[in-house]
Amino acid sequence: MLVAGVITEYNPLHNGHLYQLDQIRRTLSPDILIAVMSGDFMQRGEPSIVSKWDRTQMALCAGVDLVLELPYIFAVGRADIFARGAVSVLNQIGATHLVFGSEAGRMEPFMETIQLIEQNRDSYRTELMNALKQGISYPNAHAAAYRRLAERSPSTSLVDLTQPNNSLGYQYISAIRHCGSRMVPVTIRRKEAGHSDPDFSEGGRIASATSIRTHLLNEKSWDTTADKIPPFTYSILKSNSAQNTLVDWETFFPFLKYRLISSTSEQLAEIYEAEEGIENRLLSCIGGSDHFRDFISAVKTKRYTWSRLQRLCVHILTHTRKIEAKDQAASGEAAYLRLLGMNLKGQHYLNMKRKELQIPLISKIRQHRLPVLDLDLKVAGVYDFLSGRSPSHRTESSHPPVRYDENKGLFLNAEP
Amino acid sequence: MLVAGVITEYNPLHNGHLYQLDQIRRTLSPDILIAVMSGDFMQRGEPSIVSKWDRTQMALCAGVDLVLELPYIFAVGRADIFARGAVSVLNQIGATHLVFGSEAGRMEPFMETIQLIEQNRDSYRTELMNALKQGISYPNAHAAAYRRLAERSPSTSLVDLTQPNNSLGYQYISAIRHCGSRMVPVTIRRKEAGHSDPDFSEGGRIASATSIRTHLLNEKSWDTTADKIPPFTYSILKSNSAQNTLVDWETFFPFLKYRLISSTSEQLAEIYEAEEGIENRLLSCIGGSDHFRDFISAVKTKRYTWSRLQRLCVHILTHTRKIEAKDQAASGEAAYLRLLGMNLKGQHYLNMKRKELQIPLISKIRQHRLPVLDLDLKVAGVYDFLSGRSPSHRTESSHPPVRYDENKGLFLNAEP
Repeated sequence: MLVAGVITEYNPLHNGHLYQLDQIRRTLSPDILIAVMSGDFMQRGEPSIVSKWDRTQMALCAGVDLVLELPYIFAVGRADIFARGAVSVLNQIGATHLVFGSEAGRMEPFMETIQLIEQNRDSYRTELMNALKQGISYPNAHAAAYRRLAERSPSTSLVDLTQPNNSLGYQYISAIRHCGSRMVPVTIRRKEAGHSDPDFSEGGRIASATSIRTHLLNEKSWDTTADKIPPFTYSILKSNSAQNTLVDWETFFPFLKYRLISSTSEQLAEIYEAEEGIENRLLSCIGGSDHFRDFISAVKTKRYTWSRLQRLCVHILTHTRKIEAKDQAASGEAAYLRLLGMNLKGQHYLNMKRKELQIPLISKIRQHRLPVLDLDLKVAGVYDFLSGRSPSHRTESSHPPVRYDENKGLFLNAEP
Repeated sequence: MLVAGVITEYNPLHNGHLYQLDQIRRTLSPDILIAVMSGDFMQRGEPSIVSKWDRTQMALCAGVDLVLELPYIFAVGRADIFARGAVSVLNQIGATHLVFGSEAGRMEPFMETIQLIEQNRDSYRTELMNALKQGISYPNAHAAAYRRLAERSPSTSLVDLTQPNNSLGYQYISAIRHCGSRMVPVTIRRKEAGHSDPDFSEGGRIASATSIRTHLLNEKSWDTTADKIPPFTYSILKSNSAQNTLVDWETFFPFLKYRLISSTSEQLAEIYEAEEGIENRLLSCIGGSDHFRDFISAVKTKRYTWSRLQRLCVHILTHTRKIEAKDQAASGEAAYLRLLGMNLKGQHYLNMKRKELQIPLISKIRQHRLPVLDLDLKVAGVYDFLSGRSPSHRTESSHPPVRYDENKGLFLNAEP
């Protein structure tokens, strides 16, 4: 049985994602297609434009059979932590193949690169430490260390890790090896637009999720966006727009600012990923900032990437403290599987698989008492409230998984 | 030299306050008139309708010579804590008389009452404890204990402590005795409307501050309000209304709700005045509440007064923890004098008095490094930001005291 897994944010799901799913079906003909998807906050430290429930609907409409949530601590984590968490979820649910998009588009360069780094682990580490000591950011230090290694290597087909999707792919493969899984990594060449390419070429059918969000939130240009996304994404985004629930960081910024103003630096230092006194920079810059973008620009130094600062701000907003995050992040493995949605085929697979699972599968929150879930529930509560989705009518803990009949093209429990 | 002190909120300053100041001038002819005034949050746990700086302007226009801030921990404290803090400020600044409005209007009943309670301290305490054990609120337990004592007393001219201003006056006198001050308490009969009487009699010139706030915020009836307040109050309120900076709890409620949603009950239990597991009630009621009033109604039990719950919510909003509040509250004495405003006469008095002061007088925040001030600065920062007063152009720590030339009727450093 071929069980294909993808690691996604679908923020929002666009034509590039459709293309990837098509390619998977054509090249692998999987029996089942599973997505592990971030919840309400993204890896680069941003709130998702619409809720995870809406994005789950998009995934099911696009032909994904089963959608599982990547727990918050991995979803809003550094690339290696993100990758390990996501791979652990796919491994637990029985994925035989992990498919990812990359600029390289072939596995050989990845394998050569992995081999090169593993064979030179010590000198790689030394280079990394030297680069970090110069006060540059973690991803840039990695890139510099790798470049030094590559320069000395006879191999001519190494992967270019400065490309964002190659880099993420490398983390996925490392994570598979790290957890000793037998999952087979498979890569598909990404089509056109880069991951966060802000250009929005008028003619093309494929644009990055970032550029789509920017267009919708800032320019409200629905007509040009309609070409880049499938009709179901369009309709879900439109409906959120009508209810004023399309969000970005600016929507949440007053609450971040309030949180910072009412905190001391000692309290901020307790927040997950607040390191090296960065909390003092945050406190000294917040008073003069009226917008999130200005705020991050004011705080930014070469030691911190934009994404790292944004992730820290998400942890501050959700009040995620080291004490409740570190163990989970360090373990590198999800402690539970949270079911967000499934179609009939996905449900069938789940029924078959349920007894073999080594960690709890959570479909109804009320039935479970896992302390480790509290963080995800709190985060969802904050997102729902701040995005204007009143939690009074349907709270995160009472929300059932989305069910979809792929034969009839019907949701079996649409939101009220 | 006769130095008269008053304890005020001026939220906002209205004709009843003008009447009181007139009475003080006519009956005492003080050389100087000093007000100790709450900052941005009130004793009954509400944000002030306009900032303390605006209310300081009102006080100076009304003829007060010197305005000092009652530190937050006393200003938003139970009546006895409020009274002790305020009396300590007046005592430090050299007030010879403390003047307060009361329903009784004469000192004799207060003195008889004080004597009765002091002579029966033990049985009063027993009655109080018994009443508290029955699960009724602190003020009601006090009232019940006092009623039992009064019933057995031969005196026929005891003060009626169920009247709110009598009750506060009683606390002032107790505080004077407690700190061993020689300040002379003087009472003036309050004219018409009770302290929080919601009626707004169309004909009268005097209405309660509560009814004035309600009218302005809910009914926007400026014409009927104009009769009840002096022209300078009217103009300051109007200008705030134009800038959308008239506030009440509903303005701040989304931020309280966000704070609660992102807190665990353990974190809430660290908040000052969170006792007896009330934090769990707050957490269980917040999800379904869209308005502050509904929220407090949902949480309310007979053990807690409305004011106590509101004060707790202020402490949650300002993130005031037991660890930073308890010592100051328990000491019952302000650790510093914070100058909010003065006229020329007030300035002269201050210059004369400055050397005798036993605690720091703070006029410019930047010149001082008092850790105990941090709480007041944080609270002011929260209020300024949430009420839409951008702290970027003039922060609390750079705001100079308001200076007023009473001869020319001019502010010497009006806000930009």
